Amino acid sequence: MRSSGLKVFAPATVSNVTCGFDSLGFAIHQPGDEVVVRKSANRGLQITKITGDGGKLSSDPNLNTAGISALKMLSHIGEHDVGIEMELHKRMPFGSGLGSSGASAVAGVFAVNELLGRPLERRDLLPFAIEAERIACGSAHADNVAPCLLGGFQLIRDHATADITRLPLPSGLHVIVLHPNIEVLTSESRAILSTTVPLSDASKQAANLGAFVAACFRSDLDLLHRSMVDYLIEPQRAHLIPHFRQLQQIALEEGAIGCSISGSGPSIFALCHNSNEAERIGEHFTRLYTDDGIEHTLYVSAINQSGVTLY
Amino acid sequence: MRSSGLKVFAPATVSNVTCGFDSLGFAIHQPGDEVVVRKSANRGLQITKITGDGGKLSSDPNLNTAGISALKMLSHIGEHDVGIEMELHKRMPFGSGLGSSGASAVAGVFAVNELLGRPLERRDLLPFAIEAERIACGSAHADNVAPCLLGGFQLIRDHATADITRLPLPSGLHVIVLHPNIEVLTSESRAILSTTVPLSDASKQAANLGAFVAACFRSDLDLLHRSMVDYLIEPQRAHLIPHFRQLQQIALEEGAIGCSISGSGPSIFALCHNSNEAERIGEHFTRLYTDDGIEHTLYVSAINQSGVTLY
Repeated sequence: MRSSGLKVFAPATVSNVTCGFDSLGFAIHQPGDEVVVRKSANRGLQITKITGDGGKLSSDPNLNTAGISALKMLSHIGEHDVGIEMELHKRMPFGSGLGSSGASAVAGVFAVNELLGRPLERRDLLPFAIEAERIACGSAHADNVAPCLLGGFQLIRDHATADITRLPLPSGLHVIVLHPNIEVLTSESRAILSTTVPLSDASKQAANLGAFVAACFRSDLDLLHRSMVDYLIEPQRAHLIPHFRQLQQIALEEGAIGCSISGSGPSIFALCHNSNEAERIGEHFTRLYTDDGIEHTLYVSAINQSGVTLY
Repeated sequence: MRSSGLKVFAPATVSNVTCGFDSLGFAIHQPGDEVVVRKSANRGLQITKITGDGGKLSSDPNLNTAGISALKMLSHIGEHDVGIEMELHKRMPFGSGLGSSGASAVAGVFAVNELLGRPLERRDLLPFAIEAERIACGSAHADNVAPCLLGGFQLIRDHATADITRLPLPSGLHVIVLHPNIEVLTSESRAILSTTVPLSDASKQAANLGAFVAACFRSDLDLLHRSMVDYLIEPQRAHLIPHFRQLQQIALEEGAIGCSISGSGPSIFALCHNSNEAERIGEHFTRLYTDDGIEHTLYVSAINQSGVTLY
């Protein structure tokens, strides 16, 4: 009889958190990707099933982040003979700015590591997920995979060396993520960015990120609020997202700590003091999009402190 | 008989600390400026004596940062009648990158506040010192005056609103400051900076500043070391300072946590784990400059945690 397999869930992540372009990300509870793995008599890794991708993803493990991260890890530990079947169930939208490719990368490597009896520590899986992102997206980025793997708020000092730091956070914080059902490819959203920025904006952005980190350690929510300003990226991408400025204004007027674009968009996130505030702002968001006939999905979530998990 | 007056000492400061251009500064113990104030029968603030300035500074209190900060404070508290005599003794070089104008601004306002029986809290004197810097230097900057007034490592999120955060630091850290006896005016050193920077450098710089702050809160000296890289400013100013790259290499090879330009130069600082390391690196610095016939002054200091003080 065929094994039912080992099932893992890798959460969506919000990256480019305001002042933390390419350096700050956190995990939420839903949505996310699911990967199922089981041992197989056939040598090597096979992706036997993909659902929820609308036929967009390759089942060649070398061309799919879930497969790439797992293969890189298997190669690293010198495991060339084991047979593994993998199923990937996409439970989150593509091109949403919620770290879809990263979630698959983390789910794949984490599942295979578990299946093999955990030859590596969780933290040590990070380079394989970063490598999968590099191959899939063209540049090594850890700001989705680090929080997806490890949970919480992660500051990435350097992607290539996986130099990351987990930031403490006051308890109770909740996040709203609003996803308008339009697809924005990371590559396209990157392409519109100016390759240079004013020095004055760069120094204000850095100071805000420094203050953001200090606010996390101090549990200073007012400072967190003041620091959550993006001088560099948001102004260049805001036009990609329907009603972005209006949504942001609503969120901030209703007391959100911060509100900006998630990843490279089009999802918008708002960091809130508690679930009530998040629910209230979420209702405003939904009303605005519904009134304007914009298809969308709303997620309300605490910060996911655990990252990828076994089901 | 004339009062001997009330004497204060305002320390030099290192600003633009690697990744913290315009946002990170700390105070040292020596050198610094001295201000003496006493009540006078003549209404208003008079600067009666200036020493150590080589005749460069104005004794018009409206044209001297020590006077400006004090006048702004007096105006703020509605004190228009008191007579005050002020002496300013410059005990640090001009144009050294060690916050000379800021030290005078802090000394002036702090001394007058003490003389009047402390109508304002120390922290509340900051805006007047920032205002003096704005008038003297053309832009509001708190990265010298904040650590000069309050001591320690200060992160400035926003200068105009004096939004500052003190960073915790591991004990025992020492600093070397090497001042080649050449003058670099802040205005000139600013003028050579490119007004735009690559986005990729801006995001790495911000990530380093975030990591620097996290390292301070975690007492993680390795992370502090990794974060002390300046992608934006140092490459543009290094040529202003004799043998900068060689000095930096020596400091880092000898184990310094970080080494870069202080303020807008030409002083160089190295942050060290302890006094022994600082003394050792200081000897290398001195030898290199002496061998090349470069006049210089070397300061070795713990981080000054108190800021401006009464003598």
